[in-house]
Amino acid sequence: METVSAAKAHGGTLGVYRHTSTATGTAMTFSVFLPPHAAKAGGAGAKLPVLFYLSGLTCTHANVTDKGEYRRACAELGLIFVAPDTSPRGEGVADDAAGAYDFGLGAGFYVNATQAPFAAHYRMWDYIADELPALIAENFPADPARMGITGHSMGGHGALTMGLTYPEKFKSLSAFAPIVAPGQVPWGHKALGGYLGADPAAWRAHDAVALIEDGKRPAGDVLVDQGDVDNFLAEQLRPELLAAACEGADIALTLRMQPGYEHSYNFISTFMEDHIRWHAARL
Amino acid sequence: METVSAAKAHGGTLGVYRHTSTATGTAMTFSVFLPPHAAKAGGAGAKLPVLFYLSGLTCTHANVTDKGEYRRACAELGLIFVAPDTSPRGEGVADDAAGAYDFGLGAGFYVNATQAPFAAHYRMWDYIADELPALIAENFPADPARMGITGHSMGGHGALTMGLTYPEKFKSLSAFAPIVAPGQVPWGHKALGGYLGADPAAWRAHDAVALIEDGKRPAGDVLVDQGDVDNFLAEQLRPELLAAACEGADIALTLRMQPGYEHSYNFISTFMEDHIRWHAARL
Repeated sequence: METVSAAKAHGGTLGVYRHTSTATGTAMTFSVFLPPHAAKAGGAGAKLPVLFYLSGLTCTHANVTDKGEYRRACAELGLIFVAPDTSPRGEGVADDAAGAYDFGLGAGFYVNATQAPFAAHYRMWDYIADELPALIAENFPADPARMGITGHSMGGHGALTMGLTYPEKFKSLSAFAPIVAPGQVPWGHKALGGYLGADPAAWRAHDAVALIEDGKRPAGDVLVDQGDVDNFLAEQLRPELLAAACEGADIALTLRMQPGYEHSYNFISTFMEDHIRWHAARL
Repeated sequence: METVSAAKAHGGTLGVYRHTSTATGTAMTFSVFLPPHAAKAGGAGAKLPVLFYLSGLTCTHANVTDKGEYRRACAELGLIFVAPDTSPRGEGVADDAAGAYDFGLGAGFYVNATQAPFAAHYRMWDYIADELPALIAENFPADPARMGITGHSMGGHGALTMGLTYPEKFKSLSAFAPIVAPGQVPWGHKALGGYLGADPAAWRAHDAVALIEDGKRPAGDVLVDQGDVDNFLAEQLRPELLAAACEGADIALTLRMQPGYEHSYNFISTFMEDHIRWHAARL
């Protein structure tokens, strides 16, 4: 693991790191914010809770790292914040044939692709669920028994599917404007069809609503914030499908429709502190 | 004035605007954050205080707009935050002959250039001191009697020289890692020489330390934060020169050397809230 940059921020340390991923077979870049508590934790052997933030379409690690406004609350509460990339990148990594923003580079959808030519490197599920948590635990004062996950849009989808599939690993769960049912919306049809093939049966393991229908349950309650003037709300996000699924499964979902907010980091940064506090209280 | 974008953030509105500047003769872009109080203030005729933030070398309005972490505190305290560009831009605007980062585009140094070919458009002094405050007062619920100014690096230089020259206009003053004495450092020699000519006598009106020596005084006390591992500290910034000038002139300077911090938005965003509170308490 190579340190790309490191700087003091909000009393802690913001670092950007690069490593060669076994899962994707490519170099992967991610950022880690270590709260001030880490200096003591590192020395004493005490470990800190970790929040993984999965980004949305077109993003790298850098968008939330720069614009997310998460550091002040993480520094106060002693939470490590980890922001990975959204797809493999580099020479030999396939992209959407037309260079679309919603498939291929920057749009890995947090699945292990089974379809050529994507199966070679698009293994973001294994990367996020297994490889990155292990790497973080090995290299930072992180407690693998206290990890939570959140994300935005495509990353909200990733957080929900990870949290539902691995409740013993991701013990707290939230999302910002998530794609809750990719099997029922155009972004999902394109991405899951392209990565996993045309049979919708293969998509259910990567669809939060389907996972709940199929019996998966998160570790605890779930927080979702959603702007009510989000351009993608009615066609791509459809939080009402998640609300219905949670209600049917006795999952405690706090779904907050935020009046006047759209889909960008203006929205995310506004409610980031609430999510940090949500996770810190549960980890 | 044209609205480029507007979105709800932290309970207020973040807007980006473009207009044709009389001062520079070019299109100029800036951002304005209106706190939630503005909705009421606009209707009732009540006016809010304004903080101008001048950015550093290479920046546009967008850097602090995205990374500054100023909105939460402005939303709490009812402060309007205005972030202009750092130079004129566009067709016919001269740049550094070699495209250097520290002169020409992105490096206006907040002066009215007198030297060809820069005199045609590089009139950032008039733009920031006169045109932009008037435009803000005309188009937003801003109180022209309660304006403060701050900035970073080259923008800290701009804030200090503006605040010292127009204490009746800028009633509160702070800076992040400012260039305090451009007449005594390489960045300043290049920029003031290029824009104002080779005679250092012409530079004194754009050098905070020289302005203090020449009798100028700010409206009140001054806050300066400076990271102590800032790469530019010893050669370009030299806060000790400002401290000495203020001491000799009975100016109440709070100069805080911040251990471990460097020159970037990691530093700025960490201490932004302190500066917002400093200005709000004085406006």
